[in-house]
Amino acid sequence: MPFELTILGSSSAIPTSERYPTAQVLNVHERFFLIDCGEGTQIQMRRMKFKLGRVNRIFISHLHGDHYFGLVGLISTLSLLVNKNDIHIYAHPELESLIGGQLGHIKGGMEFNVYFHLLDLTMPSPVFEDDKVSVISFPVKHSIPTCGFLFREKPKLPNIKKRIIEKYGIPIRQIQAIKEGADFITKSGEIIPHSQLTIPPKKTRSYAFCTDTAYYEPIIEIVKNTDLLYHESTYLNDKKEFAGQTLHSTAEQAATIALKANVKKLVIGHFSNRYKKLDGFLKEARQVFPETYLATEGEKFRILY
Amino acid sequence: MPFELTILGSSSAIPTSERYPTAQVLNVHERFFLIDCGEGTQIQMRRMKFKLGRVNRIFISHLHGDHYFGLVGLISTLSLLVNKNDIHIYAHPELESLIGGQLGHIKGGMEFNVYFHLLDLTMPSPVFEDDKVSVISFPVKHSIPTCGFLFREKPKLPNIKKRIIEKYGIPIRQIQAIKEGADFITKSGEIIPHSQLTIPPKKTRSYAFCTDTAYYEPIIEIVKNTDLLYHESTYLNDKKEFAGQTLHSTAEQAATIALKANVKKLVIGHFSNRYKKLDGFLKEARQVFPETYLATEGEKFRILY
Repeated sequence: MPFELTILGSSSAIPTSERYPTAQVLNVHERFFLIDCGEGTQIQMRRMKFKLGRVNRIFISHLHGDHYFGLVGLISTLSLLVNKNDIHIYAHPELESLIGGQLGHIKGGMEFNVYFHLLDLTMPSPVFEDDKVSVISFPVKHSIPTCGFLFREKPKLPNIKKRIIEKYGIPIRQIQAIKEGADFITKSGEIIPHSQLTIPPKKTRSYAFCTDTAYYEPIIEIVKNTDLLYHESTYLNDKKEFAGQTLHSTAEQAATIALKANVKKLVIGHFSNRYKKLDGFLKEARQVFPETYLATEGEKFRILY
Repeated sequence: MPFELTILGSSSAIPTSERYPTAQVLNVHERFFLIDCGEGTQIQMRRMKFKLGRVNRIFISHLHGDHYFGLVGLISTLSLLVNKNDIHIYAHPELESLIGGQLGHIKGGMEFNVYFHLLDLTMPSPVFEDDKVSVISFPVKHSIPTCGFLFREKPKLPNIKKRIIEKYGIPIRQIQAIKEGADFITKSGEIIPHSQLTIPPKKTRSYAFCTDTAYYEPIIEIVKNTDLLYHESTYLNDKKEFAGQTLHSTAEQAATIALKANVKKLVIGHFSNRYKKLDGFLKEARQVFPETYLATEGEKFRILY
């Protein structure tokens, strides 16, 4: 089952002629999560062949416009497409009042509801879960309340080997209980422990999203050992002081977080419009953390087991 | 001096992967007017090399989102670019309350003011004028109050031929008065009438913008003889009934307005996303009005004297 991130926008607040503001789609087992929704997100989704109506859970990191100005356009288009799936938006409590007037004005009415779920931006908090995935939010360090998101597959149950089932004659009705931790007692009364009956499940995959943020070590513990970390890198290190003042990060800082958190792969984005070319970001980050990649528009990052 | 229209977006309400919602820039003597501002307008402006800060008068036809959802992003970017030119928005009175919350939230504050000028959407009304151009709005026929805009160069003063100045020895201080209509009295008392002293000025150029609208003959008188008419053409004639129901026009209807109004050139746009290719629009319209062109992204229409 897929666990795949697609970058829709890689720009920081000022988009360029090639770089869109922040937006990403995470596909977990064919459930599509939209993370941030800058202006033009719906157009980027079309370009990358996502069906708009399938992306119905939207996570907004903070209320700077480059992270949410695409919401009303997306929802307006969904209403025109006669979408019927409810939309769930996870965001700062103020978002609803900011876009509520425009949503109320969207022509033709809507055949779906838009639910606003309020994030707790003060501490790591569960945000959403279903049978396949859980999402938590956690505070990062920016000029207004901002959070990151950690997406993690739900732990799978262990498997029972076919030859074990045959060897002990385990009835089908007991298999689920054994997967969930039970031992097996043979007809002769012998107890076969759970650990001898099962093989460990595939590991769970995880993705952490961190933008906008200054270099902020408290996130290391939270994103530790994730398969894929997106960390903003608005500037290069020659603008380190300015990055600190504006509560953004440099490529080196993003890579340092990745290194200290022992993640498998780092993706950097949210590039300032002052940089025409992005090679410098990759070079700077890879000196600290070689498994770094650029979050350019259309780029996909598939996490395998 | 230029009088040139640039198309930023040609799509109707649902953008496609190639077509953006409505937005156009009209350059009149290096004054840049933005007409409608759908999502992604700021990105299109960058692509087409317009300096965002130079476009400080914005005319919004109506409050369907595909005509104004790009405003807050554009203004947000201008604030980040430390723009200092005030922005003037001419729109339905409700616009300010719809986007006011988001404008108030734009980070970093703004070093310019945003002024909302309220349109009278019930009758043709003057909207703006300076020494070079006048703009009037006029009602069109749509599902919510909507207006078109007519941009017209100010009439120029006639010129005085150099040989006439020499022949009668006209002092420089009298030239302006003669241009404005005065006769000239020679030293011998002979009255030389204004008409013999001057040659007519270059004609004034004009552009009329009509979207969104059903086929609506009252606009003919208003846009009569314009050099360039943009008229929406959301559908082809096979969807004529649906166009009528949704208060949009077909290519044939747009061309009929152009023909009856005796305009010089027609540009059609606001194409429905149901049409992948646009050849049919051109073919249908040109059967009625041969001087028809498509409003595709990046297309420029220069009006010469």
